[in-house]
Amino acid sequence: MTNKIRVGIIGYGNLGRGAEAAIKQQTDMELVAVFSRRGVVQTIDQNVTSLHIDEVQNYKNKIDVMILCGGSKSDLPEQTPYFATMFNTVDSFDTHAKIPEYYESVDAAARQGENISVISVGWDPGLFSINRVMSEAVLIDGNTYTFWGKGLSQGHSDAVRRVEGVKGGVQYTIPSEEAITRVREGENPDLSTSEKHRRECFVVLEDGADADEVEQTIKQMPDYFVDYETTVHFITDEELQKNHNAMPHGGFVIRSGTTGEGNDQIVEFSLKLNSNPEFTASVLVAYARAAYRLYQEGQIGAKTVYDIGPGYIHPDSAAGLRKKYL
Amino acid sequence: MTNKIRVGIIGYGNLGRGAEAAIKQQTDMELVAVFSRRGVVQTIDQNVTSLHIDEVQNYKNKIDVMILCGGSKSDLPEQTPYFATMFNTVDSFDTHAKIPEYYESVDAAARQGENISVISVGWDPGLFSINRVMSEAVLIDGNTYTFWGKGLSQGHSDAVRRVEGVKGGVQYTIPSEEAITRVREGENPDLSTSEKHRRECFVVLEDGADADEVEQTIKQMPDYFVDYETTVHFITDEELQKNHNAMPHGGFVIRSGTTGEGNDQIVEFSLKLNSNPEFTASVLVAYARAAYRLYQEGQIGAKTVYDIGPGYIHPDSAAGLRKKYL
Repeated sequence: MTNKIRVGIIGYGNLGRGAEAAIKQQTDMELVAVFSRRGVVQTIDQNVTSLHIDEVQNYKNKIDVMILCGGSKSDLPEQTPYFATMFNTVDSFDTHAKIPEYYESVDAAARQGENISVISVGWDPGLFSINRVMSEAVLIDGNTYTFWGKGLSQGHSDAVRRVEGVKGGVQYTIPSEEAITRVREGENPDLSTSEKHRRECFVVLEDGADADEVEQTIKQMPDYFVDYETTVHFITDEELQKNHNAMPHGGFVIRSGTTGEGNDQIVEFSLKLNSNPEFTASVLVAYARAAYRLYQEGQIGAKTVYDIGPGYIHPDSAAGLRKKYL
Repeated sequence: MTNKIRVGIIGYGNLGRGAEAAIKQQTDMELVAVFSRRGVVQTIDQNVTSLHIDEVQNYKNKIDVMILCGGSKSDLPEQTPYFATMFNTVDSFDTHAKIPEYYESVDAAARQGENISVISVGWDPGLFSINRVMSEAVLIDGNTYTFWGKGLSQGHSDAVRRVEGVKGGVQYTIPSEEAITRVREGENPDLSTSEKHRRECFVVLEDGADADEVEQTIKQMPDYFVDYETTVHFITDEELQKNHNAMPHGGFVIRSGTTGEGNDQIVEFSLKLNSNPEFTASVLVAYARAAYRLYQEGQIGAKTVYDIGPGYIHPDSAAGLRKKYL
């Protein structure tokens, strides 16, 4: 491949860093520049061009696909429609309930700019979404179960840290082994989110705080913990820094269905991730390749993972995939 | 949906029967007719039209998609190019090494007939192929492991039954739990096929046959058993009929990769099937829907699962999938 796909990154938090690392692993891509509201940032590779976000417009014909690494709450709903008029884009918009309106606004902008925008890429939404749809299409009579974890939950960790007497802490969401086993056995149980998961907290107390009181306050917190089997471990500041600074995550999508005269069939997809942001960024980078190829074919508008043939994300050609992977 | 997709089946063995059962589960499809070289066959639903294969040509404008349920060895290489000039088709051609030439011959025929032909659909090739390509695209630095089983192997069962002194028997291929665990732990081991699987045989002896001799002959059979950990159980005729007449299968595709500064990431897809032919047929039927939609879009030629967006196989619309499943 002589012409590499020229990629840019907008937004340089954990996801943007993951995208830089993932692009470096590809032989058919080059990272042209990283753009941030903070201006010049400390990139992993010091040779990467780092610029203020206001300079994006100067790169209009120098970047084939822009990977948008901002947050779903306030960044992407504004940034994606804006940049989609200038570039092919890929993003990880993950506010499930707002995806239809987000799609409409990005689609209009991408069509105006005659670009491709692949939205809501990652693992959920993303790879998990693909597995929910494909396994249901194949096993039309059945139930789909999504379990998350073991994973660090930012929202629940924040809730723990807001409790009086807590100096620091993290919360892990853990899928219930018992529930997974029941699903895998084809039992087709009715399971609420709280029956499918338990919660484990690692907490550093303020000096003089009452451990029992903190534990009870956490366990009885409405919405976040009260409906769940929750465990609270008290640890030292040093243990928190040393053992809980990674961002693991993962989960399971299991479809349990029936064919013919009652033959049980189980389809399972699972992820065990040691770095959630690096994995999500790796999915974004693979779909940047798809965006580039769709654009080359003359397609325009917003796309989701449902619209894109799996082969489009792999560096090999269609003929190569048929020969080596089918 | 007012107009149902009109589907036909050519070939009525286990796979054809599975296709009949799977079509019955769909609300957007109707089975027009089953065609067989044997002429009229005993269908599951007695109301299904059953015809000799020579009558296919009379159905040219009465069937939207033909599901080809013949074998890969001699049926499909002849049938698919022939019928692809008349109908949109879906097949499960699974001779991996011959897929490129098969693709070329089917593609030419489908283009001549201005039809769509989706080839090599099922679970391997099929869903496993998708997972091999997608997980490698996302985790470009890593290893992919495919394990098969627990499953009934037709070829190995035949080999067992050819041994002198054997009256009847079956062979199950079983993935090695130890090997799977090592892969799941991110160890990235080098594993041969025989290190990934063990073999379990259930054998009925002829009257007066020597059990020890039969067991040794099986275990030392070149290619089939000698390199594998093999267990031989002797059972009665009644046990064979009662406990070993199902066709279970399944397996695992596991990608173990690394991102960033050495974060291990594991992607796993697995199937646990109580009926291999019914599941394969269910995948064929879902891709028949995709063939119909691609044809409606004006596309022609041969396609594989790599070319087709996952949403095309699900009955819901693209907007519905974005809203409910993404």
